Amino acid sequence: MSTSEPEMSASHTGHDVRMRGFARRTTVEQALCWVDEQSCPLDSQRIAIDAAYQRVLANDVVSAVDVPGFDRSMMDGYAVRAEDTLGATPYNRLPLRVVGQALPGAAFSEKVASGQAVRIMTGAPLPAGADAVLPVERVEVDGDRILAQDAVVRQKHVGVRGEDVSCGDSVLPRGRRLRPQDVGVLSSIGRAEVDVIRLPRVRIIVTGNELLPAGALPSEHRISDANGPMLTSLVTRDGGVPEHPGIVPDDPASILDAMRSDVDVVLVSGGSSVGQEDHAPVLLATHGELPIHGIAMRPSSPAGMGILGKRLVFLLPGNPVACLSAYDFFAGRAIRRLSGNATEWPYVTIQRPLCRKLVSTVGRVDYARVRIDGDAIEPLAISGASLLSTTTRADGFVVIPADSEGYPEGTVVEVFCFDQKAVPLRT
Amino acid sequence: MSTSEPEMSASHTGHDVRMRGFARRTTVEQALCWVDEQSCPLDSQRIAIDAAYQRVLANDVVSAVDVPGFDRSMMDGYAVRAEDTLGATPYNRLPLRVVGQALPGAAFSEKVASGQAVRIMTGAPLPAGADAVLPVERVEVDGDRILAQDAVVRQKHVGVRGEDVSCGDSVLPRGRRLRPQDVGVLSSIGRAEVDVIRLPRVRIIVTGNELLPAGALPSEHRISDANGPMLTSLVTRDGGVPEHPGIVPDDPASILDAMRSDVDVVLVSGGSSVGQEDHAPVLLATHGELPIHGIAMRPSSPAGMGILGKRLVFLLPGNPVACLSAYDFFAGRAIRRLSGNATEWPYVTIQRPLCRKLVSTVGRVDYARVRIDGDAIEPLAISGASLLSTTTRADGFVVIPADSEGYPEGTVVEVFCFDQKAVPLRT
Repeated sequence: MSTSEPEMSASHTGHDVRMRGFARRTTVEQALCWVDEQSCPLDSQRIAIDAAYQRVLANDVVSAVDVPGFDRSMMDGYAVRAEDTLGATPYNRLPLRVVGQALPGAAFSEKVASGQAVRIMTGAPLPAGADAVLPVERVEVDGDRILAQDAVVRQKHVGVRGEDVSCGDSVLPRGRRLRPQDVGVLSSIGRAEVDVIRLPRVRIIVTGNELLPAGALPSEHRISDANGPMLTSLVTRDGGVPEHPGIVPDDPASILDAMRSDVDVVLVSGGSSVGQEDHAPVLLATHGELPIHGIAMRPSSPAGMGILGKRLVFLLPGNPVACLSAYDFFAGRAIRRLSGNATEWPYVTIQRPLCRKLVSTVGRVDYARVRIDGDAIEPLAISGASLLSTTTRADGFVVIPADSEGYPEGTVVEVFCFDQKAVPLRT
Repeated sequence: MSTSEPEMSASHTGHDVRMRGFARRTTVEQALCWVDEQSCPLDSQRIAIDAAYQRVLANDVVSAVDVPGFDRSMMDGYAVRAEDTLGATPYNRLPLRVVGQALPGAAFSEKVASGQAVRIMTGAPLPAGADAVLPVERVEVDGDRILAQDAVVRQKHVGVRGEDVSCGDSVLPRGRRLRPQDVGVLSSIGRAEVDVIRLPRVRIIVTGNELLPAGALPSEHRISDANGPMLTSLVTRDGGVPEHPGIVPDDPASILDAMRSDVDVVLVSGGSSVGQEDHAPVLLATHGELPIHGIAMRPSSPAGMGILGKRLVFLLPGNPVACLSAYDFFAGRAIRRLSGNATEWPYVTIQRPLCRKLVSTVGRVDYARVRIDGDAIEPLAISGASLLSTTTRADGFVVIPADSEGYPEGTVVEVFCFDQKAVPLRT
């Protein structure tokens, strides 16, 4: 249904919401370009390293220390002067006097002289004067003496200062998504905190007078909100911090108020099209910018995107499959980029042949849910934007480009898998 | 160094810790079998659906409702009796009287009679008597009448009750790791809570008198704990709930007390070998079971595993690369299985040729860190178990089986990537 609100022509965006249907649809490619232009990594924040796993570094990390900070023994044995062991064999055992011990964290404080040895444990600092470690298996203990049965060269079984990390080394680059071992290395160089890209705050606005809040049993003429919990999970997956305080009444004042939340990204689910009750596009065109509304794809064609103040706003269709697809193509990409993560989809892909033809229409991108049936791909649905269960029965989806009429049976297609495939461990 | 504590022969495990070095090493394959035997999914717990993303379902979920629970309009338009539109064209417009409206969540309460129409919005319940929706684009409004310009068949533009989910449908199977859209479907069928596999609680015990707590700057003869923060991140990755209250003093009473924490899994980092200061294996053999101690792999050969009460205990070497590798081969696998997740590694794999030979030794599994250099794989290190920075410079690792001497240059090897590769989005 058309609307006659006068400010709706929104000439600064070229958007005319009085039309029935969309006058012109933006291509998926153009919309992706717009997303990429608008979404650079956010500013940084300093956090404790115990919260740093999977966060993205805002700066190169340079070590201010050597790791280890001292020469240390890599074996249980005896710290010796290597020259004292020259010629030692099981048949020519050379005696050394044991003058003390070095334990991890407890150094031997004197200097090892010629003819002396210090009992040493793995990880203990090598005493001054000593330059090698004779492993415990290569000596015989004889009272306060040991009999060396083997010769060792200098530095043997010694981990030298700075061999893991040297002071001044750049240990991790800016933009790195921190792995478990990276967090370990940060700790090893004594970093208690680290600067990472701030996580985007994302306000989820779910509208629709037919909706009951998540957790409510659907009643006679109302359905329970599926998009709110789904979007909350998707935002979490992509590195955003979701805020979803509940269903927003389907009136312009309530929606505009929610759109003005103190966040980085706004997702509006429902009322994204050009009908009389579709308030969000009108509000965005009036109070901000709506450069893209209507996209040449199925489902999700009624999606839109724009800017309100400093917020990126995504208008997502209320139909849940269209909501998922529009989120995945555009909003998720923006959230990943804002949080410093990789732009691309977090889906593993596989290539397999189609067991049935998959029909599409030239001029739009299709998002086709498929099942992985052994070695073949079974198309489930392209249409059915209101049937979220098609996405839970599916193992993934195929994207059919705008210039394709689809694929005949047997065509090898690329499937984006909803769940990461297990990697078999071979030994 | 040997120990002479008398109860150490631990005959119930066949483990003799008086030996120097390991008498016999368990194969990686045997150790994996032991892990799989000991780790079945834990019991279930009921949680709210807003915490359910990525949790694993303990039971099949069966819907107790139809979704939608009523026939609804899929378009903005007019609810009509299809028979009334028979023969309508732009040149033969048929008049219908508009008797009311149906909005989402607000039904038209009367019955639509022949010759009548009800204005209806997408998502609104179809009124009684009506059986199709005439889209707004196919009518002309004429006061309180519409002129139908097109015929519609019964059910046209109607979403029928239960078309997404029918009452009694099994919507999600036991064992499913919940995806964003799954959480949406749970909400759509009115589930506020769901039964999922409980997350294993994992006590991380880091010992070593040379260690300073994470976040401390390393001082003269001490190093800062890398394994605690690394293991905390790994446990989180694999679906466990880590507990790491700080460094545990390197004495048997403190370690045993910590091992008896109220948890499902205990990870002990440091003191895992057969030296005099290696308390954990002795404690485990004495107070529990230590069926596996010493594994034919590099690094990580001093690893062990056993049972204390109902807890699975993993003894991980203190050297950080060996700690990472032992965790990844065994402890992580157990935690994933206990939490109901896939047994296999959460790493994406790629196949590429080696740009240099990669040497190994028959009789043990090698964990070789590699870099991905364009289209080639560059080996970084097999040894250097104390150098955690080799794992942060690496892009992943290659597992060289026990029966292999390694691979010549040019061999295509499988790399387990530390970071999931980006999936390019094609449109």
